[in-house]
Amino acid sequence: MLVVGSVAFDTIHNHSGTHARILGGSATFASIAGSVFTPVQLVGIVGRDFPEETIDSLTARGVDMAGLERSDGLTFHWEGRYSDDLTSRESLCTELNAFAEFHPKIPDAFRDTPYVMLGNIAPELQLEVLDQVRNPSLVVADTMNFWIEGKRDELSKVLRRVDVLVINEEEARQLSGEHHVVKVARALLTMGPKIAIVKQGEYGALLFCDGEIFAAPAYPIETVADPTGAGDTFAGALLGYVAHNDNTRHDTLRRAVIYGSALASFCVEGIGTERLFSITRDDVDDRFRAFRKLAHFSSEEEVADIEHEDRAPEASRAN
Amino acid sequence: MLVVGSVAFDTIHNHSGTHARILGGSATFASIAGSVFTPVQLVGIVGRDFPEETIDSLTARGVDMAGLERSDGLTFHWEGRYSDDLTSRESLCTELNAFAEFHPKIPDAFRDTPYVMLGNIAPELQLEVLDQVRNPSLVVADTMNFWIEGKRDELSKVLRRVDVLVINEEEARQLSGEHHVVKVARALLTMGPKIAIVKQGEYGALLFCDGEIFAAPAYPIETVADPTGAGDTFAGALLGYVAHNDNTRHDTLRRAVIYGSALASFCVEGIGTERLFSITRDDVDDRFRAFRKLAHFSSEEEVADIEHEDRAPEASRAN
Repeated sequence: MLVVGSVAFDTIHNHSGTHARILGGSATFASIAGSVFTPVQLVGIVGRDFPEETIDSLTARGVDMAGLERSDGLTFHWEGRYSDDLTSRESLCTELNAFAEFHPKIPDAFRDTPYVMLGNIAPELQLEVLDQVRNPSLVVADTMNFWIEGKRDELSKVLRRVDVLVINEEEARQLSGEHHVVKVARALLTMGPKIAIVKQGEYGALLFCDGEIFAAPAYPIETVADPTGAGDTFAGALLGYVAHNDNTRHDTLRRAVIYGSALASFCVEGIGTERLFSITRDDVDDRFRAFRKLAHFSSEEEVADIEHEDRAPEASRAN
Repeated sequence: MLVVGSVAFDTIHNHSGTHARILGGSATFASIAGSVFTPVQLVGIVGRDFPEETIDSLTARGVDMAGLERSDGLTFHWEGRYSDDLTSRESLCTELNAFAEFHPKIPDAFRDTPYVMLGNIAPELQLEVLDQVRNPSLVVADTMNFWIEGKRDELSKVLRRVDVLVINEEEARQLSGEHHVVKVARALLTMGPKIAIVKQGEYGALLFCDGEIFAAPAYPIETVADPTGAGDTFAGALLGYVAHNDNTRHDTLRRAVIYGSALASFCVEGIGTERLFSITRDDVDDRFRAFRKLAHFSSEEEVADIEHEDRAPEASRAN
């Protein structure tokens, strides 16, 4: 899969203190998450201050960094402060630096990659990516309020050319002008995408596709360390899982939403990318099973079957 | 099952107009919902203006109305106005009338009923019920912000004597002093109940029991007609289903939450009780299956099994 987005340093102030200049950016989170399932190609830009070791650690996770451009300037730096309950945040400082001159250049070797993720960057840049890739099987786009408010026309052009839109519920309401999520999704699906995934934070996510709805719960985490990057992680894992399966059948998409939620749940357990770097595929599969335990319920027929099976051995003994 | 609560007339102003003096009350909604699964005994009070036909129509649904007291006064009347998106409402008028003198008198024939629902009434009245019933198998209590703010001590006494607390997320936060739902539930479970069910409105409901969590989605309804009584309906159906099964195993409780959600989803499709009066057990089972389609996802092993089965016939033909 190909991931295009930001690579950044984040300075985060939250209940646990100040975490200065840690690794962040939409492409970073999405790539690490996707790399759990499939090889990832990252396209982004950093400055002269970006450490080689970080590039090496991403490469070690299976992320091809050949598309990472180096500018003479500094790396994109974002600084923000979270409320104590982590439900809101304010941006203290956004230094675009190298990112201000970013125009994605997709290496020729990456242009035929079938699964493409347009990270949460300006819609004009997302369009530049779409002009360079060749016949992708599936394009996923992420966006946010900033572009919905300021770049509506460009965003509309992007939406007409993508297959999957991944979006927060509040931003989906803003984009669609509707309030209730079923109407929201219907409106989004008239804008271009065949598939809409509405993220509802601690309430999970809804997948809308071909008239079907799938409701995925959120994993109930008692102590969130840092929600930064959870949305990018969700989208990256989702597309990584689809790429690994190389199909967009309903059952694949449902599992992809669960794996996206699973990776997002790991993401928020650590500060920045730290927890994502430590997880294994086994951790992820354990959490997938935890999601099943969380969401599944038996039908009465299933219970009757189980009770029947329970009784069967006794019956045989009686004979 | 035994249901104790209010029986009322509601006058509702919403986007579809004014619905004057329609049937309402916590015991009414809970009883109709519970009667889908099990015989129901209702205890409540009405005034001289309460129509015999309404009593007859509840009796016809399987609700034993022998515990309905008749006062010389008028029936409890509530009048409220919903916002256009139905997410908030203001009370315009609350005439307690006969309900002001209500002290639940549980008929002797009802006192040994194993499943007891304490509808959303004053905690002192809930305690009066608990003093009259004999060795119930399971007691479910509902409550609301009004009692949490005004009758905290009495409510604490109730909580120490009930098995299941069904409560809205906002009210659960208020009662527990916690914000995150896992911490909220843990705090609720220290107050007495063994089982806590936190209702999250359009986001579904969470069941907490024996360290396990079950996340039930809400049924995505595009056009809600009237949310009045949905919470009472949820609790009534939940307990009715448990009573029908006569056990509180985990799988029973999970299905009970789904049936509660299913009945609540029917409730909001009509004004007041109108849709509840028209549903059949088949409607309910269809919606239960719709909930499975909404919430379930396959594991990769299951998909491998299915693909294996799909291939098997071809293999046989080839032989």
